[in-house]
Amino acid sequence: MRIPKHIGVIPDGNRRWAVEHGMEKKEGYEKGLHPGLALFKKCRNMGVKEITYYGFTADNTKRPKEQTIAFTKACVEAVQMLSQEDAELLVLGNTKSDMFPKQLLPYTERKVFGKGGTKINFLVNYSWQWDLGYGKQTHNILHSDDVSRIDLLIRWGGRKRLSGFLPVQSVYSDFYFIDEYWPDFSPKHIDEAVNWYSKQEITLGG
Amino acid sequence: MRIPKHIGVIPDGNRRWAVEHGMEKKEGYEKGLHPGLALFKKCRNMGVKEITYYGFTADNTKRPKEQTIAFTKACVEAVQMLSQEDAELLVLGNTKSDMFPKQLLPYTERKVFGKGGTKINFLVNYSWQWDLGYGKQTHNILHSDDVSRIDLLIRWGGRKRLSGFLPVQSVYSDFYFIDEYWPDFSPKHIDEAVNWYSKQEITLGG
Repeated sequence: MRIPKHIGVIPDGNRRWAVEHGMEKKEGYEKGLHPGLALFKKCRNMGVKEITYYGFTADNTKRPKEQTIAFTKACVEAVQMLSQEDAELLVLGNTKSDMFPKQLLPYTERKVFGKGGTKINFLVNYSWQWDLGYGKQTHNILHSDDVSRIDLLIRWGGRKRLSGFLPVQSVYSDFYFIDEYWPDFSPKHIDEAVNWYSKQEITLGG
Repeated sequence: MRIPKHIGVIPDGNRRWAVEHGMEKKEGYEKGLHPGLALFKKCRNMGVKEITYYGFTADNTKRPKEQTIAFTKACVEAVQMLSQEDAELLVLGNTKSDMFPKQLLPYTERKVFGKGGTKINFLVNYSWQWDLGYGKQTHNILHSDDVSRIDLLIRWGGRKRLSGFLPVQSVYSDFYFIDEYWPDFSPKHIDEAVNWYSKQEITLGG
């Protein structure tokens, strides 16, 4: 089986999961923490070298304040949780906005935790416009230039779209869509996605 | 039913179709011409305002020469065919390369044909790196800035990827994937895709 070097993760459906379980929307986000750790362990054990999590975006911050507070808290906790693992962790997003949580500033340069090994990119207050340098007079940089090409992008929650996720790294990615909401993550999802991926002919646009 | 304003089209599978029909790979491309016209008429009649066809890319030009010649010829014919319709047509791609067919240079500024109406963008020798202005010292432009945000992107041929298609216009698009190869296009595919699209909640990343 061909293992993707880099997996992108769009963990969607937390709010819909909460509503279907009789909770308030904002309560869904913390249900995504354990799946995030389980996914890391599953991917690391399979030999995946790099994982990118779509935490929250500048677009998301237009949501009601109680939701914004809840998903920001969940992302801070997720990063702190992942920093307990053997990983090379980078938090990536627009730090020059009030929406970027101060607690995560120490993670905005890639650092080795534990024995290192797996690269983790965690997108926080990310925006594709910011990434591509829109509105700058001169720009020859990509803010995400420390993030490699994504081989396999997996999205939970049934939607079939990128929602602004890393446009440059996704140009040649294979997309795998899972109907289950992210809080219902199962390691089997990764098996299914990687099994499917390994049957795809990789042409990189050629 | 909510009709997408702008549909992107990735007409993949011509070569596989040819092989399965006992032909040479290169013979598949011309089988995509009639589907292209049928799609235009179907979308126009549904009220779609803009259509973008993924003709060929700079990546594609690395293929064997006989294939490159065949798909270039098919794209030239497709543009000439569409210019017989009521449309506002733009051919978009890197014209400063030998791979750009000279016959299409007159189409590289948007022009009204017949009574105009539907916008058509036809990508020829397109490259996402070129589009985003990579390698330029100063760039504040997007080469594709006359192409609007894509609401619904439909890909034929079973693959689930963008293959470098308009990264900026696709950031919020809904993706619909069709297993049939492009030469087996049916107007029913558009009905199915638009029907599915009209049930998607549109959030534009929010």
